[in-house]
Parts: sequence; structure tokens; C-alpha cells
Amino acid sequence: MNNFIYDIPVKVYFGENQLSNLGTELKRYGQRVLLTYGGGSIKRIGLYDKVVEEIRSAGLDLFELSGIEPNPRIESVRAGVDICKQQGIDVLLAVGGGSTIDATKFMAAGACVEHDAWEFFGADAKPIERALPIVTILTLSATGSEMDAGGVISNLATGDKLGRMAQPMLPKVSFLDPTLTYSVSKYQTACGAADIMSHIMEVYFNTNKDLFLLDSCMEAMLKTVVKFAPIAVRDPENYEARANLMWTSSWAINGFINGGRRKAWSCHPMEHELSALYDITHGLGLAILTPRWMGYCLDETTVDRYVSFGTNVFGIDASLEPMAIARESIKRLSEFFFDTLGLQRTLSELGIKREDFALMARKACRYGDINGFKRLTAEDVERIYEMCL
Amino acid sequence: MNNFIYDIPVKVYFGENQLSNLGTELKRYGQRVLLTYGGGSIKRIGLYDKVVEEIRSAGLDLFELSGIEPNPRIESVRAGVDICKQQGIDVLLAVGGGSTIDATKFMAAGACVEHDAWEFFGADAKPIERALPIVTILTLSATGSEMDAGGVISNLATGDKLGRMAQPMLPKVSFLDPTLTYSVSKYQTACGAADIMSHIMEVYFNTNKDLFLLDSCMEAMLKTVVKFAPIAVRDPENYEARANLMWTSSWAINGFINGGRRKAWSCHPMEHELSALYDITHGLGLAILTPRWMGYCLDETTVDRYVSFGTNVFGIDASLEPMAIARESIKRLSEFFFDTLGLQRTLSELGIKREDFALMARKACRYGDINGFKRLTAEDVERIYEMCL
Repeated sequence: MNNFIYDIPVKVYFGENQLSNLGTELKRYGQRVLLTYGGGSIKRIGLYDKVVEEIRSAGLDLFELSGIEPNPRIESVRAGVDICKQQGIDVLLAVGGGSTIDATKFMAAGACVEHDAWEFFGADAKPIERALPIVTILTLSATGSEMDAGGVISNLATGDKLGRMAQPMLPKVSFLDPTLTYSVSKYQTACGAADIMSHIMEVYFNTNKDLFLLDSCMEAMLKTVVKFAPIAVRDPENYEARANLMWTSSWAINGFINGGRRKAWSCHPMEHELSALYDITHGLGLAILTPRWMGYCLDETTVDRYVSFGTNVFGIDASLEPMAIARESIKRLSEFFFDTLGLQRTLSELGIKREDFALMARKACRYGDINGFKRLTAEDVERIYEMCL
Repeated sequence: MNNFIYDIPVKVYFGENQLSNLGTELKRYGQRVLLTYGGGSIKRIGLYDKVVEEIRSAGLDLFELSGIEPNPRIESVRAGVDICKQQGIDVLLAVGGGSTIDATKFMAAGACVEHDAWEFFGADAKPIERALPIVTILTLSATGSEMDAGGVISNLATGDKLGRMAQPMLPKVSFLDPTLTYSVSKYQTACGAADIMSHIMEVYFNTNKDLFLLDSCMEAMLKTVVKFAPIAVRDPENYEARANLMWTSSWAINGFINGGRRKAWSCHPMEHELSALYDITHGLGLAILTPRWMGYCLDETTVDRYVSFGTNVFGIDASLEPMAIARESIKRLSEFFFDTLGLQRTLSELGIKREDFALMARKACRYGDINGFKRLTAEDVERIYEMCL
């Protein structure tokens, strides 16, 4: 069991109609606010008007940057950095899902340095020592970006999709209103659920021994997604389902469940190459990869984790043989993603071609083998992609 | 489901040998440090010397207040306030269990006002708008004071033992080293376990409907205590057991599990009257009261919670009749406290007299009925005390 530092000072307003606190919270951090968002969805659900009204009635100066992409691009980050520098922005307000929040984090960091924001990424990444304060209003339960210090940015020019974490990018305040996710489509709700589960499973499937408490909390979170994602898909305005998914998405990746575990994640780096090259939805890529990765990693040395997962999350009979429980747990997870949630089950269906596997696998291992639950070489990654055909 | 605000910005260093960070952390808050502690135990385990060495080598000025009692008294708080004011203390460092940390919180708050610290308590309590910064080093897993904003202080002159919460008293940094609890006696370890479980059960047994996620996390925490408290009692230097109990104790009461639940606690106000009058260990009082309180509150309207508790925490067969599961869950909890952990099972064994029940019950309801899981009048509280004879 390794030591760890727990440090998640994000303040969260959870529930409906909490935006009356927005002006007060923004004001703590300054006068000039950059509002960032993606497409028109926040206007369609009336959120944009409410946010602008709160900012104006607090007497703050409002600047805007819209058009942040799903799988947000470095060009959007650069545009935000320019506004921050030119307008002397004090605080950034990201309204949207993980893409908008991720991009906003790197705008906030980029505003504090002279170099280009893409230099925060890659092997010789520049340090992130400061960032402008960030407030978020979440509209999609998936990435957990509202309560963590990381983000992922795509660079189409280099074909890269790279992640980076840094404590200064942690949001100061996040507003989590489950009703703001009512309009999320069945498909995006399902992809979000797969993303949340993957965040937990990347930590849960680990050969580092750590706190039983945290394993049990991860099982609690996974059970919550398994119980409520189908309800949210079926009944999009079910508050209880949306609320459970929303709070689980934050806790899945804010660092709490890690404890002292230090193993690398596996499915995320494999997936990032898929969405970097094909611009698919991240959660869908994870749903397709995860059960195959579990199958690839299953052996006598790893079977115990599958048994805990299968019995505690899916309620599989604990008296069965360990290998039988493990195989059943993979089957149950597949059924959950592809039958219950209705996600596409193969890379072929998405038009992803075998001929790109070798390149993507090499890129997934650009910094060396993926040293996660089981060590994966580029060849292993290629085999796992092939299992997804 | 009610809205809530989540705001727990405590930074935690978890694990062995993290005290090398103590000087750096204290320095953030100033130059003049008041070290507070209880009896000689921190000297016996060598912790005092380590702490003093860290403070001195960081070049900070050290002041001391020792002798803080279990069930800490207002006189200790006053003594600390006097030192803070006379010496211009910048930051308080509490080293010990919940008693030392609780008392230190009110010293930190008392140092910022002109009135007597006892005026922070009771029906006309003065506001707590500021407090000096607090750093803690925990030596006992029980109260969770290291990660929450509350504390309980006794006033023998008035016969009161009263609690108070206020966000400014939240510790800035807490050091949680499981090895510092190796020397905690079997008895105190068992009492601490009962205290942790009670903190969770006071929230879990609730008629407010809230997030399934949080119910499941509470069950995860309860299972952790049930699994590891007996190991820590049997094998005091078992790191895994001590670590699990320590991190669970913090999360049992830092506010995370509450969500939007707003019902009052029940066993704590009943117990505070026992330890106010008889100075017994808080966790022992809770262990004696809790199963009787559960028995008193069980009926057709409340039985569902007992069923979830019994099946998910103690693994009772879910196919039994609900009432049978409920009664079995009370039996299993009693066996856990009194047989497995070896705690005393009645108030009579502690010399607590029936003739004091009416007065204690009235005091427990001094602000009105206890409006918790089930509403309890002073007469109800008296009946529950009688069940503990």
C-alpha cells in the first residue's frame, strides 16, 4: 500500500436552481469573466440566458468563446488563451461537458505563460505552475472534468490526442444540476455511462494492493451506474437517475478512489488513438475496448479481480469457479454496454479499419509499454484492437 | 432529494513518514505555532520529538498547550485562546485524537473574538465567522474531527456537553499515519470502531430519500469497519487494518455521505448526556445505545432500511422476511460490538444509574424532540436508556 496525498478542494453546488450562487462565486475571483461553451445546446435548453443574466446582474464583465468541439482541439485552446491575454480575463466559466471544461483548463493555464499551449503536452511538456481560476457548470455526466485537474486535447495537425493533469487547473467551483442533463440523448447518456465505468475500472483492475475501503466504494459506484444508466436512457427526465450518474461521474475520477495505486490506465490510451484518428465518441470507444481488454488480460494471476468485480457489481454467484465467474463478468459487462445500453459493439461498425491498427497501437505506446493491470506492448494493443473488429 | 453544497477542502497526507511535509505546510500559515496535545502518549510513541524537530528545523516559533482531556473541557479551550491572544499565534497544530482536535478548533475560533468561547454553544450561540488556521496529526481513528468542521466540548460547571459546526474551523491540512494508531489499546480501538459506525448509521438510518450512490458508499464503509476492526483489536500493528479504519473514520463524518439528507442524529445526542454526566468513552456509549435504539425504532414504516443494512453490511439472506432480517441485523450488530469487539453491553456495568435517566433524557431533548430516523421525545429517550440497563 503506497502513501498518497488527498487534495480536492473543489466546491460543488449540487441540485436544481443553484445558479443564484453563480455571481457571488465568480466575483470572488475577479471582474472579467470568459464564458466558454460548445455548440447551441446550452442555448436550446435556456441555460445560456440564465447564465448571462446571473453574470450581468452580479455586475461582472462578460466575454465569450463558443464552438468548442467534442474532442476539443488545440485551436480552441489557443483562441481562448488569446482572449484571456487580450481582455485581461480574471476567471473562466466553462458551461458544458468534459470537452468544454477540458479546453477551458488549458486556456486558463495558457493565459499564464508565454509559450504555445500545445507545449503543455507530450514528452517534453512544459510545467503548469499557474492557471486562472475556473468555474464550471456541467451539462453531461461522463468525464469528471468538473472535479479533477486533468484534460485531453486533440491536435489534428499532428494526429495526437493527449492528456495532462496539473493541480492549478482544478476548478474552484462546479455547479452540478441533474436537470441540465435531461436533454442529453440516449446515445450520449450511454456513452457517458461507459466513460464513468471505465474511469473506475481503470483503477479497480489493478495489481497494486490498496485500501479495501476504496475497492468497496468503487463497487458502490459501479453498481450505481449499472442501476441508473438504463433508467436514464429509458426515462431521460428521471431526476434520481440523472443525479446518481452525475455525482458518480465526479467521484469516479477526482482522485478519491486511487488511494496509493500508481498503475497506468489501459483502455484510455488505447481509446484516445481511436478518437484521435476517427473522431468517435470517447465513451463508445471505451465500451467497445473494455470487455475485450478484460478478456485479453484474464489469466490465473489476474482472475481474483474479476471475481470481486463479477460478484460485487453484477451479483454473480460466488460459489462458481473463479474462471467461470471471470468469464461471466465479461459477458455481463458486454451485455450491459451493447444490449441494455444499446451501444455499437465493434470497431468495424464505426468504419475503423484494420490497416490503421498498427499505427494506432504504436502511438498508444509512444512513451513505452502500457504498464497497467497487465503490461501491454504495441503488439498486445494491436491484438486487442483486432478483438474489437 | 434535497440540494446540497459539497465543500471539504482539507488536504490530507496519508501514510507513513509524511511528517517531512509538516514544516512546509505550517509555514504557509505563519511563523508562530501553538502545538496542542493531551497526555503523555504522543511522547511515549516518539511522535512529540519528531513534531518538535520538524517545527524547529522549519525555523518556526513553537508554543505548547498540553493536558487536553478526553471529552475536552471548556477550561482547556479558554487556556488555548489565552495563549493564542497573548502570543500572537498564527497557526494551531493539534496532535492527538478527536478530543485534542475538537478543543483546538474552538481555540482557533475563540482567538478571533472578544467573548468567552463557551458562548459559541447553546441556544443563543454566537456566530463563528473566522478561526486561525488548523493543522492536525491524528493518533486515533474515531471522531473524524481531522476532516470535518465540528467539535464537542464539555462544561462540567453546567453539566453540558455540546457540539458545534462551523466551516472556518475545518482543518487546512491533516496528517493521517496509520502507524501512529498502533499503540491505541484494544478497548479504545473497539470504541473508535463503534464511533465510526455510529457516524455512518446516524446518516444511513434516515427517512429522507437521497442518492443510492451514497447509501452504497455507506455500506462500503460499514463493511470496512466490520472487516478490519476485529483485525486491529487482535493484531494492533496490522497496517492494512489500521489504514482502512483511519481513512474510513474521516469519510464517515466529513459530510460526503450526507448528500442532501437533513434529519437530525439520534444516538449522538443521547450519548452526549451519558458522557457529560459520567465521563464515559463516547464510542462505548454509542455501542450500547445503537442496537437498542434500532430495536426501539423498528416498525413497518422503517423496516426497509434495516433490510438494506442487514443484507448489504452483514450479508444476511435477502430471501428472509423483512422483519426477520431487521431483527437479525440488530442481533448481528450487538454481537459485533459486545462479543467480537468485547465492549461492555449495558449501562449498569458502567455504574450509570436509572435515577439519572429522566434528567439526561430531558437534556438530550433540550431543544425539542430528537427529529431523526424516528422522532424521539424525552420519554422515548428514557425508554431507550432503560433498554440499556
